[in-house]
Amino acid sequence: MSAGQLVYGLHAVQSLLKHHPDRVLEVQLTERRDDPRMRAIEALARAHGTKVLRVDAQALQKALGDVTHQGVAAQVLPLPPWSEEDLVSALGEVKSPLVLALDGVQDPHNLGACLRTADACGALAVIVPKDRAAQLSPVVRKVAAGAAESVPLVSVTNLVRTLKLLKAADLWVTGAAADAAKTAAEVDFTGGTVLVMGAEGAGLRQLTRQNCDHLVRLPQLGSVESLNVSVAAGMLLYEVVRQRNNN
Amino acid sequence: MSAGQLVYGLHAVQSLLKHHPDRVLEVQLTERRDDPRMRAIEALARAHGTKVLRVDAQALQKALGDVTHQGVAAQVLPLPPWSEEDLVSALGEVKSPLVLALDGVQDPHNLGACLRTADACGALAVIVPKDRAAQLSPVVRKVAAGAAESVPLVSVTNLVRTLKLLKAADLWVTGAAADAAKTAAEVDFTGGTVLVMGAEGAGLRQLTRQNCDHLVRLPQLGSVESLNVSVAAGMLLYEVVRQRNNN
Repeated sequence: MSAGQLVYGLHAVQSLLKHHPDRVLEVQLTERRDDPRMRAIEALARAHGTKVLRVDAQALQKALGDVTHQGVAAQVLPLPPWSEEDLVSALGEVKSPLVLALDGVQDPHNLGACLRTADACGALAVIVPKDRAAQLSPVVRKVAAGAAESVPLVSVTNLVRTLKLLKAADLWVTGAAADAAKTAAEVDFTGGTVLVMGAEGAGLRQLTRQNCDHLVRLPQLGSVESLNVSVAAGMLLYEVVRQRNNN
Repeated sequence: MSAGQLVYGLHAVQSLLKHHPDRVLEVQLTERRDDPRMRAIEALARAHGTKVLRVDAQALQKALGDVTHQGVAAQVLPLPPWSEEDLVSALGEVKSPLVLALDGVQDPHNLGACLRTADACGALAVIVPKDRAAQLSPVVRKVAAGAAESVPLVSVTNLVRTLKLLKAADLWVTGAAADAAKTAAEVDFTGGTVLVMGAEGAGLRQLTRQNCDHLVRLPQLGSVESLNVSVAAGMLLYEVVRQRNNN
């Protein structure tokens, strides 16, 4: 089963069985049978003809490391990466698409954390440049805590060109910049939205910055120079959800 | 100089020289002399009689690791931890104090990230329980990127007792809980505020939860069970700053 990614947690496994049953290779349940949510997952797996294994809780914990697996895990086929074309064609399938773009984020922990938050905030996809930026890896998948199997990563040759494509598809592009005049709350995020985060310290590249419709700043009341990029992305994604009033 | 903590970045060093000159043991500047902000830091250090060293940029980078030091670092005396009494007496010195409490966060990376965000959002202090929770360590200080030298950590024997003291001092306590009926935007954070975050997966402990004035949920639109605790704390801190309209 080494072709699969191990995803854990009641909600993550249930969601995969519901939306992508073809990608679930097997479901692993610990011995506790008294939980109605675990029984529901077992029934769902069996309805799709998916193999269900009973596993030892300690062995599962050992395989997953220091996480809360809630007695449920699944081996799943990795989510295929999206091409730029996949992304553009997916835009038409959702109302007010939300996309996160990372302009030169090199730390795999930050990419993983951004995928996890993008998932929680209902983002359609996360875009990264192909060069000089973190790509999917075992570390990224682990930090993403399952979100790498639910939010597609789009690795593009030219981020500015992709932003132009998204603008042509009626999305508005907002970049985070320490020197911006506006706060995030001053921009309307209820329509199709692309959020662009620069690398920590360096910020957005000049050409990326020039292609943003809005630039917004985030809280800077303290003595530290800039926020961690995954926390900054979390604040902007939160603001989008808040404005759309569905959080 | 091993008694000091190495803090870096123009803003962090300048802030320490302005607010805590007695804690700055020496300032290290790289050879670039053309930057007016570096000259301002040098002048400030000399005005306080603080030693200024010229250092090699590569050697400084090596000492600091993969960070953006902007050519400036300082050896500073560590920020002394606060007692519960220090915290309570500091409440009177600021308008609408903002305090972050972490109920059983064990990962030092998460504690460091929370300190960094608490600094950016103007929090007065971060509270952690003494037992079964991450405390200040080299890893925490590194992840906090200087914020461990600006935001005091308060390590308390009994978190619930501390929350009661803060409530008695007219602060309102809001806890993050996945099953809460309200969103963060539905709670008024313009007055004195304590935000309480539980451990990932486990959430708030029962007794902590019972002592919150409000419980709020954060975005959960995706398939992953819960947000990273430092990102969740960032969202709530952002919401406080947004409501206070000074971000």
